Amino acid sequence: MIFDILTIFPDLLQSPLNESIIRRARQQEKIRIRITNIREYAFDKHQMTDDRPFGGGEGMVMKPDVLKAALRNVPRTGRSSRVILLSPQGETYTQKKAVELAEASQLILICGRYEGVDERFVSRYVSDEISIGDYILTGGELAAMVLIDSVTRLLPDVLGCSLSANNDSFSRSLLKHSQYTRPRDFDGDNVPEVLLSGNHKVIEAHRFIDSVEKTLVKRPDLLANTRFSEAEIRLLKQHDLHDSIMAVKKDHE
Amino acid sequence: MIFDILTIFPDLLQSPLNESIIRRARQQEKIRIRITNIREYAFDKHQMTDDRPFGGGEGMVMKPDVLKAALRNVPRTGRSSRVILLSPQGETYTQKKAVELAEASQLILICGRYEGVDERFVSRYVSDEISIGDYILTGGELAAMVLIDSVTRLLPDVLGCSLSANNDSFSRSLLKHSQYTRPRDFDGDNVPEVLLSGNHKVIEAHRFIDSVEKTLVKRPDLLANTRFSEAEIRLLKQHDLHDSIMAVKKDHE
Repeated sequence: MIFDILTIFPDLLQSPLNESIIRRARQQEKIRIRITNIREYAFDKHQMTDDRPFGGGEGMVMKPDVLKAALRNVPRTGRSSRVILLSPQGETYTQKKAVELAEASQLILICGRYEGVDERFVSRYVSDEISIGDYILTGGELAAMVLIDSVTRLLPDVLGCSLSANNDSFSRSLLKHSQYTRPRDFDGDNVPEVLLSGNHKVIEAHRFIDSVEKTLVKRPDLLANTRFSEAEIRLLKQHDLHDSIMAVKKDHE
Repeated sequence: MIFDILTIFPDLLQSPLNESIIRRARQQEKIRIRITNIREYAFDKHQMTDDRPFGGGEGMVMKPDVLKAALRNVPRTGRSSRVILLSPQGETYTQKKAVELAEASQLILICGRYEGVDERFVSRYVSDEISIGDYILTGGELAAMVLIDSVTRLLPDVLGCSLSANNDSFSRSLLKHSQYTRPRDFDGDNVPEVLLSGNHKVIEAHRFIDSVEKTLVKRPDLLANTRFSEAEIRLLKQHDLHDSIMAVKKDHE
């Protein structure tokens, strides 16, 4: 997988791309990251990458001709490359989208800045416009790093075998159950007895109910698409959770 | 505003905190950023910050006693400090939450890692558990930077006067209208005539309709909470958009 990042702040990206899982994936050549400084493709002596908006208004707009020149410089590699603009106007990024993007051979990430990007560039050259959430960032650089991190950990052999991408939150539309580790007694607060029982079936049931209760309280919207097995439904009924879940599912349909 | 970041990857954070608006806000002393390396508060000679989960399962869990020691080291300053854990189990971060957090005097950000954080630490010491979106990241560091960026740009005098935090997407539950800048003719694709008219009332109406159309197509869910003035409703009716909006509002209630 090749990630190309187009930005006017190439230095901003350095440290996150050289630590932790991203660093290891690069060293093991599971991924390659190339950075294009958009400013090098500006035409005038002031290296302008933005200009004032037609029709007036505050802020600056990224120039379509400069972006086009920068994009043209990126070599296309592999069977499928996608051109992604990180912007607040994009579709909301989710784990499902990360899984979809992990199938590509090249992701070209364009980091928006200022008040936006000229619409003519977007409609002609961008295949996916993505927003990482409903909040405003100064630029697309942090969003690009979020995307790279979430996609990279889905690639084959990137996570160690002790870690599993499947067992995480959202892989099943339920929040993860509570976790506990040593010390067993934390300032008088003990680890739930059941987790020390060694009975895996009971532990699994306890964790499942904990996941469901957490999701009900914190993110009921996630339950709309959750399907339960017959054994799970029996457990939910035992814990008087089945009716609440059916009600929430109906609310969020 | 003071941001304290608790992490086991202090180096990962360096470059984004030293560029662009964050850098300027730090230089002008609008914000202070302090980083605590959690590993320095580990007790044993291996500096363990995580351990295996009680009850079995994959991955590692961050130790509550080490996190408590690291948190206790952070000096509390100002009238209101909040302890925030970045995790996939948190409430979904939005611009509204950013505005709320911008009122605090100190935000202590704890970057989760591995399979999670011991629940006893979370329930005792964390005031806000926040998720920046429904996707899985390797750790909370990128999420912390997203939070810092979005909160910092809301602080007084951080954005220059030519930029406005109010005019952005989500400040009104509508996506921003399309933007255009020079060149006027981009490979045969011209800037919409109306934007060159100089008639501000007509331009404003055009941009409003463009915003509404974009939102209808890309993010209809945002329209559920949008309120329109009488003049805007007249415009929507003129452009045959009023009925579609009412239908979408009903769907997302």
